[in-house]
Amino acid sequence: MQAVMEKAQILTEALPYIKEYHGKTVVIKYGGAAMQRKDLKEVIATDIVLMKYVGINPVIVHGGGPEVSRYMKILGKEVKFINGLRVTDSEAIDIVKMVLIGKINKEIVSLINHHGKLSVGISGDDGNLIVAKKKQIGDVDLGYVGEVTKINRKVLDNLINDDFIPVVATIGAGEDGMSYNINADKVAGEIAAALNADKIIFLTDVDGLYEDFEDKGSLISELKLANCEYKLAEKKVNQGMTPKVEGCITALKAGVKRAHILNGTIPHALLLEVFTDKGIGTMISET
Amino acid sequence: MQAVMEKAQILTEALPYIKEYHGKTVVIKYGGAAMQRKDLKEVIATDIVLMKYVGINPVIVHGGGPEVSRYMKILGKEVKFINGLRVTDSEAIDIVKMVLIGKINKEIVSLINHHGKLSVGISGDDGNLIVAKKKQIGDVDLGYVGEVTKINRKVLDNLINDDFIPVVATIGAGEDGMSYNINADKVAGEIAAALNADKIIFLTDVDGLYEDFEDKGSLISELKLANCEYKLAEKKVNQGMTPKVEGCITALKAGVKRAHILNGTIPHALLLEVFTDKGIGTMISET
Amino acid sequence: MQAVMEKAQILTEALPYIKEYHGKTVVIKYGGAAMQRKDLKEVIATDIVLMKYVGINPVIVHGGGPEVSRYMKILGKEVKFINGLRVTDSEAIDIVKMVLIGKINKEIVSLINHHGKLSVGISGDDGNLIVAKKKQIGDVDLGYVGEVTKINRKVLDNLINDDFIPVVATIGAGEDGMSYNINADKVAGEIAAALNADKIIFLTDVDGLYEDFEDKGSLISELKLANCEYKLAEKKVNQGMTPKVEGCITALKAGVKRAHILNGTIPHALLLEVFTDKGIGTMISET
Amino acid sequence: MQAVMEKAQILTEALPYIKEYHGKTVVIKYGGAAMQRKDLKEVIATDIVLMKYVGINPVIVHGGGPEVSRYMKILGKEVKFINGLRVTDSEAIDIVKMVLIGKINKEIVSLINHHGKLSVGISGDDGNLIVAKKKQIGDVDLGYVGEVTKINRKVLDNLINDDFIPVVATIGAGEDGMSYNINADKVAGEIAAALNADKIIFLTDVDGLYEDFEDKGSLISELKLANCEYKLAEKKVNQGMTPKVEGCITALKAGVKRAHILNGTIPHALLLEVFTDKGIGTMISET
Amino acid sequence: MQAVMEKAQILTEALPYIKEYHGKTVVIKYGGAAMQRKDLKEVIATDIVLMKYVGINPVIVHGGGPEVSRYMKILGKEVKFINGLRVTDSEAIDIVKMVLIGKINKEIVSLINHHGKLSVGISGDDGNLIVAKKKQIGDVDLGYVGEVTKINRKVLDNLINDDFIPVVATIGAGEDGMSYNINADKVAGEIAAALNADKIIFLTDVDGLYEDFEDKGSLISELKLANCEYKLAEKKVNQGMTPKVEGCITALKAGVKRAHILNGTIPHALLLEVFTDKGIGTMISET
Amino acid sequence: MQAVMEKAQILTEALPYIKEYHGKTVVIKYGGAAMQRKDLKEVIATDIVLMKYVGINPVIVHGGGPEVSRYMKILGKEVKFINGLRVTDSEAIDIVKMVLIGKINKEIVSLINHHGKLSVGISGDDGNLIVAKKKQIGDVDLGYVGEVTKINRKVLDNLINDDFIPVVATIGAGEDGMSYNINADKVAGEIAAALNADKIIFLTDVDGLYEDFEDKGSLISELKLANCEYKLAEKKVNQGMTPKVEGCITALKAGVKRAHILNGTIPHALLLEVFTDKGIGTMISET
Repeated sequence: MQAVMEKAQILTEALPYIKEYHGKTVVIKYGGAAMQRKDLKEVIATDIVLMKYVGINPVIVHGGGPEVSRYMKILGKEVKFINGLRVTDSEAIDIVKMVLIGKINKEIVSLINHHGKLSVGISGDDGNLIVAKKKQIGDVDLGYVGEVTKINRKVLDNLINDDFIPVVATIGAGEDGMSYNINADKVAGEIAAALNADKIIFLTDVDGLYEDFEDKGSLISELKLANCEYKLAEKKVNQGMTPKVEGCITALKAGVKRAHILNGTIPHALLLEVFTDKGIGTMISET
Repeated sequence: MQAVMEKAQILTEALPYIKEYHGKTVVIKYGGAAMQRKDLKEVIATDIVLMKYVGINPVIVHGGGPEVSRYMKILGKEVKFINGLRVTDSEAIDIVKMVLIGKINKEIVSLINHHGKLSVGISGDDGNLIVAKKKQIGDVDLGYVGEVTKINRKVLDNLINDDFIPVVATIGAGEDGMSYNINADKVAGEIAAALNADKIIFLTDVDGLYEDFEDKGSLISELKLANCEYKLAEKKVNQGMTPKVEGCITALKAGVKRAHILNGTIPHALLLEVFTDKGIGTMISET
Repeated sequence: MQAVMEKAQILTEALPYIKEYHGKTVVIKYGGAAMQRKDLKEVIATDIVLMKYVGINPVIVHGGGPEVSRYMKILGKEVKFINGLRVTDSEAIDIVKMVLIGKINKEIVSLINHHGKLSVGISGDDGNLIVAKKKQIGDVDLGYVGEVTKINRKVLDNLINDDFIPVVATIGAGEDGMSYNINADKVAGEIAAALNADKIIFLTDVDGLYEDFEDKGSLISELKLANCEYKLAEKKVNQGMTPKVEGCITALKAGVKRAHILNGTIPHALLLEVFTDKGIGTMISET
Repeated sequence: MQAVMEKAQILTEALPYIKEYHGKTVVIKYGGAAMQRKDLKEVIATDIVLMKYVGINPVIVHGGGPEVSRYMKILGKEVKFINGLRVTDSEAIDIVKMVLIGKINKEIVSLINHHGKLSVGISGDDGNLIVAKKKQIGDVDLGYVGEVTKINRKVLDNLINDDFIPVVATIGAGEDGMSYNINADKVAGEIAAALNADKIIFLTDVDGLYEDFEDKGSLISELKLANCEYKLAEKKVNQGMTPKVEGCITALKAGVKRAHILNGTIPHALLLEVFTDKGIGTMISET
Repeated sequence: MQAVMEKAQILTEALPYIKEYHGKTVVIKYGGAAMQRKDLKEVIATDIVLMKYVGINPVIVHGGGPEVSRYMKILGKEVKFINGLRVTDSEAIDIVKMVLIGKINKEIVSLINHHGKLSVGISGDDGNLIVAKKKQIGDVDLGYVGEVTKINRKVLDNLINDDFIPVVATIGAGEDGMSYNINADKVAGEIAAALNADKIIFLTDVDGLYEDFEDKGSLISELKLANCEYKLAEKKVNQGMTPKVEGCITALKAGVKRAHILNGTIPHALLLEVFTDKGIGTMISET
Repeated sequence: MQAVMEKAQILTEALPYIKEYHGKTVVIKYGGAAMQRKDLKEVIATDIVLMKYVGINPVIVHGGGPEVSRYMKILGKEVKFINGLRVTDSEAIDIVKMVLIGKINKEIVSLINHHGKLSVGISGDDGNLIVAKKKQIGDVDLGYVGEVTKINRKVLDNLINDDFIPVVATIGAGEDGMSYNINADKVAGEIAAALNADKIIFLTDVDGLYEDFEDKGSLISELKLANCEYKLAEKKVNQGMTPKVEGCITALKAGVKRAHILNGTIPHALLLEVFTDKGIGTMISET
């Protein structure tokens, strides 16, 4: 009986956070190991459904680089990155679309559905959600690598109002009728900005940002937007973290209140962040 | 960190119950020690607000016998019961109304408000909620003791739709323009019936129904409606429990799925009942 | 037949006023003898219901000083006023709440219901309608005497939209969780202001404001807001009228178009004021 | 002051009737002298507007025989009736339409507008309101004289919901694309039936139905539907009254509760009927 | 088969125009031969219904001068114009109303109904749509000739929302209770202005505006608002076209995007203008 | 000018069909050459957008067998069919999903978007649209080949209400969490049935059903449901047509009014079928 009462006690400890986020939109960039280990995938689907039930509107954004690379190799295509961006020719963009939209997106949708709230998976073409153009990086031609020019939030608003959880694959719809592969972290930031989300959470494989990446004791728990921009300008953010930090900045500058970088391999990292006073990972905010 | 993750785990254990009761109406008859001990009052207000936040529609029904008796004594009125019913002359009904509506009802409303969801306290006159007539018991004249003739649910529906938690004091509005004191357990059963509630919960000072009230080991955890009616007919229910059992039967016969009699002095008894698989108290159901 | 046709004629004379006030909110401060004489109570309930039927939204605000004093005496409490404010210790505030909310408010609700439109009685705690703080008057401690810090109109708006007539008992909900006794005239003014009412009417026992209270021939039928403020500043308003005049000023300054002080002992004073060109009492307006 | 208070008293006497008819639809067949004397026209427009303000939905149906005859004579057309039905050739139907729709209908609309509620005048073509076919009477060809085959109530429902008072000229829209002149009393009965009106009122120049039309003392104040049908079958209703009585029967058989035949030259006959207990004219009801 | 496929091809050519005008309001001034030749009347009714079906909101405005003159002659009234304005005494205004509202308006309504969308015909009195005053032209008294002082769009908005096609006869409702005959071209311009229409189309008997009316080769296909005003000021517009040009200017100045003057005797002139890239007639736009 | 007027004439010829299908749902099974030839793809997207603009609700259902086979070969998987059903192991189902959802579905979505109405592409997981189970065919194990057990229409209803054109890839969501490849013709029939569609159209590469497939002159233009079932039972339908015919039967039995099998290589076959009286292909109806 004692154990049961402690359970009830813990439920009530979540109440202040449930109040705070009730009716708010939270964009979750889902990636890394949390998207590959079966046990973690189940846990995250549960957490997302619980968030929806207590009145939060989660919007999931995902990429899927490792799986894309795996299929490219099977199909005999060279996997090549320049400045962290995948070189994407016309065959490759088809593979990217097929893997992200046809495989990964639907796996996430299916998992969420099986935990009790219906989700709908979409990508940039659907409702013309993510309008994109070719990304120009000096005179290197990366092929169908794009950047966001506009987010049309109507389809997200409609799905949320219809009580679905939207799951977004980060393929952009070019005005030229072509598809573009866009960094999922960047898209997440743009979507959070367009939705005036309350919070954006990046699930990664590390615990957050570090003062010194080599020193595990130097984890930064809170960071101001200005400091964050300074670190980026001074190249004090390692390459893997750069798009996430850029996504945070895009979101915060558009009025999103808080951005978080969490270790998605911690079970229930989402719930811990949203429903307990135990801050985990790195939180970036404007003030 | 371990402790924190256990907290998250416990939150997710509530998910199946949150799903089950989402959008459902739960009538809570609030009474006994849970209404008198300050610590319990706070806990119950928290539990009710949490229920509201996760999408349940709680409707609170309360009496307040001991406080009425206390004021009657202060005012020099004799406190007298016949068959468990308070003899209520014209001065007494004024005292009952003042104590239930003016004091106890507003204390509950205030407590709920301070935990984060707005409530509105009403009694039988408001929106003509509880229509009553004088209760006839043989040839004994109990004065302004009444019974329900009709529940007008419009005011409850409106308050629920407007996102308030209704708190009901069990004074009936006589068609003769007089007020009637009605047993709160009975009113709770009638309201649950009129609202087609999913569940009715009676908070009391004992753990539930017993096969043999003297034998604390004989607590009945589950009971069928038919058995329950049999026990009542055979007078195997003690006087204090009788109106609660009658309230359960009224509700179940009208289609309410489950009725519960719980010990409200167990902290978070409501949450334990609704959100965990640890059944406490006695559950009565039709099948 | 002649008499009947005159009746019809009189109905049509009300038409211009029905047009003028259609869909408008009128706050009625109900008090004095009109709240104590049974014949007048019936008449006023009829008038309020008629107003509702022809499309006006009446909101009733009441106090109940004499009845409070009567109960305080029965309970052996000293009745004491300082500067017209009732000294209210912790026992007294309970008595005030019980009498105003549990007795007087419900009597009004019941009377209105019996004349054909449903009303709902609320006080400051309900929907957190009247937020209050302790009133500081020099270094005298009056106990639980408060003043309004905020009106949360949501519950009134909801009740009006749901076609109920709200009846408000003037108990304030302190942010400290305590209840406060607030002058009903002041609350009426604040509620009219918060609702952007079209009109506020104070029902009293005298015919209105006088140039010279001793000279019954000096009744003021119209007064500008500026003059009214001047009179108050110059202490040309007697103590009983002061809170009513202050209530008028609060309302008018917030944009309420007209404030009226009427003699509620004149049968159908409300209808005469609203539906005929026979101006009675004192009308205060900004311009 | 005494006179003023009597006025207020009279207003409150209307309350029970205002309650009874609130939200109900009342079809008023407007005709006879009440449509020709300027003073009566003003009075009736006022009465209709007052009904609308207190929550009744009046629907006005009118003909205009005398004015049609006047124009036909000016235009050199023979005015000829067979069995009380106007012989209507193709030129005549144009004149009927022009007079009823272009002149009389708009006069009524204009009068109502000037008393404070907006009205919209329509005829059978508008929204295909009155579908008609040629009326066959033995082998006499009356030309464009029709009878109702269907009422499409959508346009009336929309106008009522949009807070307009509909005014209907009784021209039918033939499925053959032609217009048909239909007896206004009959159309009124059909419209009341189609709208499930609560009441239909025929304004005429006589006081009602008589046992013996020559004996002014034999006015029938109440009549059952069955008796009414009997009188009609037995030809105990004079020709002028026949279509009105038929309209009453059509309406009552479709569920309209009460049908009235009133003398429209009595000022405020409508108000007297609806808002006082002084029954005037003849009332026909099913039971 | 070839012919059929060409048909399909033509349907798809209309798509860009259907997109452009979807949900837009188009005011159509209907007059001239197109209102008198039976074949053209059918064609125009078809075109209007087609516009409604593909999501455009057409509003029809019409006069009817020739038919009015015809009836005036039959009735022995002198037909007299001063500066293109009909001298309209009290008898004449009745004739104008009867012909426009009772005859022409209902013919249009009936035709549209028979092609598959319901229409409702109204004039200035209905919903007080066209408020007018007497037109003063020097010291000549033209009688009941008026000009627009206000358009009350509520009745049009309601009819459009209720899925009807409004058809407006251009009789104005004087604030003095009188009716006024107003030039239909002017009313069309005022209604387009009040509705913030997207387009106004005048159907006439000529192909549009000419540089030199005698030179049929000098048709102006596009004209800027400024040039249009200049032409009017310089009296380079002939009398028949003047009110149409004034109507165009009124509409364009209020924000209507384009005004067109078309030859309504060209079959399907409306469809050609709205759904093909073949500009016909004269288009006037601000920029 | 002549040519232009013919265009207008053709637009009006479509009016009766626009009326008939306004607000109706039409399910279009898109497949065959019409899905592979770029010119045809553009034409069909245009036709679908035009249907949406004139008030029809098209729902697109597609498969994509040839493209799946092509990718399977590239990936070195054996392409094998049994009884016309693709043997689908766990690797193959991933390929099917990727090709249908990630490639073909989004191409269709993108094409429709570029013609002016927004579409959203979904598959069986989204909103749990297509619930499926493993298809049992004797003791042959075809792997992840499924059949429909339930259609959850909510997501389709929501997308239609939100003004999107839904495009459905026919992957089923197994209750076991696995994905199933389902024949697109069958799914189209089930969706038409679940939506109570008015019409279902199968776009194929042949002109319709033939009495004798070898005899091109034996095309069946109309067929009753009963005859259709007879032909199927008697195996008079060739294998390629069998699932289409089964889809027709499923739809018709559920109340869909008409099923069509058309040659999608005829340009604008959809428009010809829906908007002209030139019936093409085979129409099957119940009566």
